[in-house]
Amino acid sequence: MPHTVSIPDVPYLRIATEEAFAPKELFDEYRALIEKGSIDDPGFMASWGSALSNRRGGSPVVDRLMDLGEQRIAHMDRAGIARQIIALTAPGTQIFPSDAAASMARLANDILHDACTTYPDRFTGLTAVAPQNPSFSVEEIRRGIDLGFKGIIVNSHTQHRYLDDPEFFPLLEAAEALDQPIYIHPNTPSKGLIEPMVDLGLHAAIFGFGVEVGLHVLRMIVSGVFDRFPKLKIVIGHLGEALPYWIYRLDYAYTFTQNGRYDNLPQLELTPSEYLRRNVWITTSGMAHEPAIMYAREVLGAERVLYAMDYPYQYDLNEVVIHDNLPLSVAEKTELYQTNAERLFKLV
Amino acid sequence: MPHTVSIPDVPYLRIATEEAFAPKELFDEYRALIEKGSIDDPGFMASWGSALSNRRGGSPVVDRLMDLGEQRIAHMDRAGIARQIIALTAPGTQIFPSDAAASMARLANDILHDACTTYPDRFTGLTAVAPQNPSFSVEEIRRGIDLGFKGIIVNSHTQHRYLDDPEFFPLLEAAEALDQPIYIHPNTPSKGLIEPMVDLGLHAAIFGFGVEVGLHVLRMIVSGVFDRFPKLKIVIGHLGEALPYWIYRLDYAYTFTQNGRYDNLPQLELTPSEYLRRNVWITTSGMAHEPAIMYAREVLGAERVLYAMDYPYQYDLNEVVIHDNLPLSVAEKTELYQTNAERLFKLV
Repeated sequence: MPHTVSIPDVPYLRIATEEAFAPKELFDEYRALIEKGSIDDPGFMASWGSALSNRRGGSPVVDRLMDLGEQRIAHMDRAGIARQIIALTAPGTQIFPSDAAASMARLANDILHDACTTYPDRFTGLTAVAPQNPSFSVEEIRRGIDLGFKGIIVNSHTQHRYLDDPEFFPLLEAAEALDQPIYIHPNTPSKGLIEPMVDLGLHAAIFGFGVEVGLHVLRMIVSGVFDRFPKLKIVIGHLGEALPYWIYRLDYAYTFTQNGRYDNLPQLELTPSEYLRRNVWITTSGMAHEPAIMYAREVLGAERVLYAMDYPYQYDLNEVVIHDNLPLSVAEKTELYQTNAERLFKLV
Repeated sequence: MPHTVSIPDVPYLRIATEEAFAPKELFDEYRALIEKGSIDDPGFMASWGSALSNRRGGSPVVDRLMDLGEQRIAHMDRAGIARQIIALTAPGTQIFPSDAAASMARLANDILHDACTTYPDRFTGLTAVAPQNPSFSVEEIRRGIDLGFKGIIVNSHTQHRYLDDPEFFPLLEAAEALDQPIYIHPNTPSKGLIEPMVDLGLHAAIFGFGVEVGLHVLRMIVSGVFDRFPKLKIVIGHLGEALPYWIYRLDYAYTFTQNGRYDNLPQLELTPSEYLRRNVWITTSGMAHEPAIMYAREVLGAERVLYAMDYPYQYDLNEVVIHDNLPLSVAEKTELYQTNAERLFKLV
């Protein structure tokens, strides 16, 4: 049982970088959408439909998502987590119409700001936006900085569109100009991607999340987003959503598409792997697996790999122990757990 | 340039295990389908539509696919390849109506058998089947054994259905009973999976192939195929289509689907990783990347990792050198290049 694990004191701060919350109002709105039955998103229905509408007496994860108080702090204490970087859970605002999405983002940011003010030594926030409302999002990124937030959360596709869509360029431009890393957190795969996953429950953490976010980042790379916004910083979880494993093949097979068949593909300035090593940081959420962490550090660079727990979805103290026991020096563990996050999110 | 690379003599046989061919008649039939414009498969149209219909003066890959003679032998000699394990290229017969698929499989097997008879020391064949015609496929697997073939090729989805579909169980039953490994080679993703890949050319080797085959194997695992056919042997390329990278998360997140929400999911006898380590072998096709090969050997087991070149799609002598230079002993390289293949495909 996770809670019998004993977490040692260590000479570094454990900063967990992919941690989630949700206002009660978000679930209320999700329930309203589910009851209307009008959502054009099979992944949303599969992941939240039964969790919210058939709920009997509360789900621990839903309850923990709504808590930004003493319970969360107690869980952090028990796990030895010094600080959580907290973001609005998927799909956040991105499933709503534009105006409703903006209102929800504003509300979520206000609630998260209150909690960060109450626990300034324990919580750091990321700014919730509404990508389907670019002008609002640009303003909200600025407001988020005023509120002390250190980056932006985008829960992958927005109504089946990805950040390579020029509609979203004002958001990317603001993120780059204001040096706010964008955490692209999984959403269930978009409707053109999910069909042969969802009948067998493969659309979520076991497979679909990684496909969705890996595709998202590749779309940004091959469409030239990182030539247009060369200083844009993207963070992805789950040890890079398998892109580090594919890194050699990405470069090799990318050349196969440069044969004139795709006149919508620009000539890129760099190879795919060069963008991964320049514009992308990865976290260990859900991947407390020593060989994979060591591999990702080797191929992407140790300075690009950050610790994450994925609270409350994966609150497992054994995984903290696995990270503590990695075959790394204290200096390297400090980098993984603490200083990479401090530098990327400008925490100190 | 690849051809200036010098390939050293080595104390092991280089057996390449994911090598492709195609009869001229296959391309003739593909062209007829493309001209009719009636194919319900966006991946097929994207990958073969322009390659075949706009062809001017021959494509080197198409020409090399059709050659099972002196040119192929010369290329093998230049690359130091002792033996190719040869299979009908994707999507093979799987796009045709049932009877046409059976005829094409039979023709392909006759042609490949002739070549293997001409070059018995250099070529080994896999049996082409027509999964959409299960009774034919069972008979053809038996005939393939008589022809000296050592396994079966399935080019992933068959008209958007996967091998977890009970329609295909007679094929799996025969493969298990006759101890014929099934090589699940990529096809472009099925129509429910491909939409946000295809506009940017991400549906093929750079990303879509891996998603398609990774999903295929996971569908077989979670639906219980390997409990029904516990001795079934599956081979997949590209270092396991990222499944080895996900191996920890597959087991962890699989438990999330065991909450009663999926009444079509059986109670499995093993964890996902246990099936990968019992029923699945992987090859290095397209993944001549030292860290990834070493990682895959570590997590899956060295005895499950086989060399492949992916001729003629990826005829690159540098990649042979990369394999020769892996930080492995001669005994370990012999296992990777030779004896794992000899054992799995019963070559000696």
